[in-house]
Amino acid sequence: MIRGETMKLMQVSDPVAVLKLIREEYKALPEESITIELAGGRYLAKALKSPEDVPGFDRSTVDGYAVAARESFGASESIPAMFELAGEVLMGQKAPSIKPGQCCLVHTGGMLPENTDAVIMVEDTEVSGNLVNSFKQVAPGENVIHQGEDLKAGALALEAGQLLRAPEIGMLASIGITEVAVHRQPQIGFFSSGDELVPYSSMQLKAGQIRDSNAPAISYLASQFGAGFRYGGILPDNFEVFMEKSRAMLAAVDFLVFSGGSSVGSRDYTARTMQELGKPGLLVEGIAIQPGKPTLLANCNHKPVLGLPGHPVSALNIFSIFGRAIIDQLAGRLQEKLMPSLNASLTRNVASRTGRTDYVRVKLARDLFSGESSAVPVFGRSGMLRTLAEADGLLVVPPEKEGLLAGEKVQVYLWE
Amino acid sequence: MIRGETMKLMQVSDPVAVLKLIREEYKALPEESITIELAGGRYLAKALKSPEDVPGFDRSTVDGYAVAARESFGASESIPAMFELAGEVLMGQKAPSIKPGQCCLVHTGGMLPENTDAVIMVEDTEVSGNLVNSFKQVAPGENVIHQGEDLKAGALALEAGQLLRAPEIGMLASIGITEVAVHRQPQIGFFSSGDELVPYSSMQLKAGQIRDSNAPAISYLASQFGAGFRYGGILPDNFEVFMEKSRAMLAAVDFLVFSGGSSVGSRDYTARTMQELGKPGLLVEGIAIQPGKPTLLANCNHKPVLGLPGHPVSALNIFSIFGRAIIDQLAGRLQEKLMPSLNASLTRNVASRTGRTDYVRVKLARDLFSGESSAVPVFGRSGMLRTLAEADGLLVVPPEKEGLLAGEKVQVYLWE
Repeated sequence: MIRGETMKLMQVSDPVAVLKLIREEYKALPEESITIELAGGRYLAKALKSPEDVPGFDRSTVDGYAVAARESFGASESIPAMFELAGEVLMGQKAPSIKPGQCCLVHTGGMLPENTDAVIMVEDTEVSGNLVNSFKQVAPGENVIHQGEDLKAGALALEAGQLLRAPEIGMLASIGITEVAVHRQPQIGFFSSGDELVPYSSMQLKAGQIRDSNAPAISYLASQFGAGFRYGGILPDNFEVFMEKSRAMLAAVDFLVFSGGSSVGSRDYTARTMQELGKPGLLVEGIAIQPGKPTLLANCNHKPVLGLPGHPVSALNIFSIFGRAIIDQLAGRLQEKLMPSLNASLTRNVASRTGRTDYVRVKLARDLFSGESSAVPVFGRSGMLRTLAEADGLLVVPPEKEGLLAGEKVQVYLWE
Repeated sequence: MIRGETMKLMQVSDPVAVLKLIREEYKALPEESITIELAGGRYLAKALKSPEDVPGFDRSTVDGYAVAARESFGASESIPAMFELAGEVLMGQKAPSIKPGQCCLVHTGGMLPENTDAVIMVEDTEVSGNLVNSFKQVAPGENVIHQGEDLKAGALALEAGQLLRAPEIGMLASIGITEVAVHRQPQIGFFSSGDELVPYSSMQLKAGQIRDSNAPAISYLASQFGAGFRYGGILPDNFEVFMEKSRAMLAAVDFLVFSGGSSVGSRDYTARTMQELGKPGLLVEGIAIQPGKPTLLANCNHKPVLGLPGHPVSALNIFSIFGRAIIDQLAGRLQEKLMPSLNASLTRNVASRTGRTDYVRVKLARDLFSGESSAVPVFGRSGMLRTLAEADGLLVVPPEKEGLLAGEKVQVYLWE
């Protein structure tokens, strides 16, 4: 007699260890050169030096009058310093030079004329005809940013591995760099499997069938995480077809993802395919995480292969944590991602099991008076997508905790 | 004598009041019908009802044996209940019906056979030939999710205004909805202005010139916030050209953005254009926020027009807050966005002025032992993009505070 014959004992891995493994096991993709308009969200493959000084000339940081600072020394409300107005610095043009005793009107960002080293703010002056009285003295360099003060020509502008966000793109544009070397965008190949699955465009279901809803949901997550997505369809419960289609897809993409079905064949074939598709094969069989424990991870010929649980909520949770970490690694991210969250008070007790990291779906309610958020756990026996659709985000119960208490301050990671 | 003649007194608005004004002043764009593959990030224009029960049949939530629960009553470790194994539920197929005294092997997600109402987990059984012994009794409904338990046919599946994230897309796919009515994606028209600006592709700069770096930076932000972007080029300091080009662009887009230059003409013409382009014209001239005070906002013929400060750091800050709020409003977002952040300890004092909301650039450092983050202010006299590129995010000093103290716990909003 065999007790529990269909249950397979799994060597369950710690989620933090799996994230570390991902960092060690997979390499960033080769680089390509692209224009900065398309480079948002990518990671620099090489450090970049500034080809020129930033700013390229001494600029005023205020609206005012450019002067030789020493000529303003001693000026006060009662005894103003007097300057002859020599003209105006026109934006985008070389400033005129001035003579001793003169000043020049300059606007914020305007170039300082020769022989000047400071700017008196317009609020500290009075103009009378051709004369400007200053009621304040200025020090050399006051209200001025000097050529190269922000960045010297030849100095490091951005380091290798830097994520190109809006500030970096603006900075590159400002120094005339229009093309950059970045790591290639990871391309994901995706298969669903399981005899119960039918394409999600199917109108009428037969008894026992369900639609393949993971494909479009994971496709959108992939785009949010910066990866391309190729859908390979639903694999039938046939090992030869599994292997043949997977081999062809793996050759064409950087990262292969299986969304497992519930049929025994589907479960077995996914693991076997991941083991046989390339060396070293399976690395992780099960992660101490809820939802999403029956997750598989392999390295096949230096390419990551992830086996997601078929359950939609588990699949989204696992892909958001480990799929994203793999995408980041392939895309050339150097540091682990900082996960922003929202502070909230938990409205009721949440049970958990020690030794397992639990992800609990919560809805956020904001108190209009205090501005404080409270986190309301969204329970559902079924654990279907509706509970996820009702949730604003997830809170994490770490493995060393037996649960969380009502009133506890928690951090909620938002779904967006 | 006129003191401070070029200084214009501004009626500076409170940032919270400006966000409220945006909610009241602009309407969501008309709806369009798109397939769910393209609907990620959009907002539903209409509530959606489920066309069918979810799940569509009674399903097992475990691997086990489907039985009539009453036949298991009284079973225990010492006196097991005995069932004849009638067969196996194949995934995706109608389950066979069973007779009294029988059970049927069923996998997670499998359909319950007729005449059964519970599933005994495989771990609680022993199989001997054709017989299954259960060492546990099960209650009716145990380990089963009933047809329609998650969602009944005809019940509300998603509300109007719902953001379509991965869970919603998966849910729509699971109930066979492949096309949805969403609000149209906002299209932004963008002009830079200022005589000092040259296209950012310019290799050599003449004295006093700077590259138009805001265009590609704001373009990437717009895509991150879910809007399309059309670049109209750099407007010259000529009011007729300003008006003519702006009128044509406004007719073609949903939201017009000016990135102001520093030349007096550019500043004046932007405001005048925003006033004359359509009714009611200018609404906001200056916001009590740092950086980004000289911001303009108008409503011209029911379309929002935003005048960004020309300074790159200010422009990015203002577009991230107010530009994003306008995009959200046009896209049909019902609630204000929840802004996730990261908790950190401030490493040094930060000065601020009461009555003004200050955004301070900070770099995050993570302590490897405690896992705690500290926020290091990134100061730079110039306030150029390099300080933003060095920063991981922003912390907000609210208007009622005179500053923040070293050691204070702060919330940092990340740039991504």
